[in-house]
Amino acid sequence: MSDFSELESKINYNFKNKSLLFLALTHSSYANEHSLVSNERLEFLGDAVLELAMSKYLYNNETQDEGILTKKRAKLVCENALNIYASKIDFNKYILLGHGEEATGGRNRKAIIADALEALLGAVFLDGGFDKALSLVLNLFVPYINEALKNQDYKSILQEKLQSEKRSIHYEIVKESGLPNDKTFEAIVYMDEIIMGRGIGKSKKEAEMEAAKNALEKEAR
Amino acid sequence: MSDFSELESKINYNFKNKSLLFLALTHSSYANEHSLVSNERLEFLGDAVLELAMSKYLYNNETQDEGILTKKRAKLVCENALNIYASKIDFNKYILLGHGEEATGGRNRKAIIADALEALLGAVFLDGGFDKALSLVLNLFVPYINEALKNQDYKSILQEKLQSEKRSIHYEIVKESGLPNDKTFEAIVYMDEIIMGRGIGKSKKEAEMEAAKNALEKEAR
Repeated sequence: MSDFSELESKINYNFKNKSLLFLALTHSSYANEHSLVSNERLEFLGDAVLELAMSKYLYNNETQDEGILTKKRAKLVCENALNIYASKIDFNKYILLGHGEEATGGRNRKAIIADALEALLGAVFLDGGFDKALSLVLNLFVPYINEALKNQDYKSILQEKLQSEKRSIHYEIVKESGLPNDKTFEAIVYMDEIIMGRGIGKSKKEAEMEAAKNALEKEAR
Repeated sequence: MSDFSELESKINYNFKNKSLLFLALTHSSYANEHSLVSNERLEFLGDAVLELAMSKYLYNNETQDEGILTKKRAKLVCENALNIYASKIDFNKYILLGHGEEATGGRNRKAIIADALEALLGAVFLDGGFDKALSLVLNLFVPYINEALKNQDYKSILQEKLQSEKRSIHYEIVKESGLPNDKTFEAIVYMDEIIMGRGIGKSKKEAEMEAAKNALEKEAR
């Protein structure tokens, strides 16, 4: 478990019960191969831990009304945001994956990374209480919330921009390739019938987001 | 603030900062009349407190997988469930309402009651920490979770029951009456073209739920 102590030092938390840390990192593919329990129930718990920690941060540090806070919170706890936080500590290298999942690129799959990071929060919460989990969120996630807020607004930004010009936009998935559990999608965003941008992603949504980003970059030039 | 100390004794928690309790009970209609801040931001926070407290309870006490736990959690933190918990301590009598809202029956409006109860949880959390809020949920909400789970399943139960008989059902709102902010709806549920049940409620959803309940009661006879 030497890797695990490296992770503990990165998150500045030492588990009293190391098996909780092990559980948090156990993806279902690894659990299946080794007849273990996976991190899925812990992720259910960690999801709520993250929600409350981010809510407390926003309540204490933002003066906006609850409608705006609710929208911000949703963006700060979503899969994309979790992947940003995870990338800062190379979190994905600690996840325990089955061979098949590893071979098909599971270590870079956004859902797997986000779920394991939530499970880690659930584990810290069970092991050390809410305040320890809150510290983790404040120290390792909050410094990157502006990046997280920026990262996912491309479709909304493009929408708003073009609405003021009374233009309508739509997205099309023009290509789908790869194996069933490791697909790549290509999206095009059109304004009226003109191609505005193209994007590639591991999900339809991600491809569309990238297409919107691409359109905005072209606009800015 | 004599009423407030009665509430504190019911929830077995004494606020260090009484203004947090006052804030939790301040509906926007009262806030508007008295130029005060309303409980809406505190409700944003309390919503996440309830979610985590229920998640911890379910994680520790249920062995089911995360999919089932997620569905259960949704039912245990929804407006209907909050109204069941609130009714056990006559919580609505402590809410501070504006005159207009009071005159039009706001004290019995489910959304107002649920929101204030969430705000109360947010207030306990800020004042005493997560464990105090968790105790409140365990002592005052958890004893009624079976009632909460049962209370809202009528539409799903009816759906499942009739699906196995290969029947199709649909709902119709047949009557709408009352003032804009105090409406009453009547719903009918049909199996094929036969009337199975009728229900009345303060929202379309509530009326449909009551209609489903009525249909199930008739079936049981």
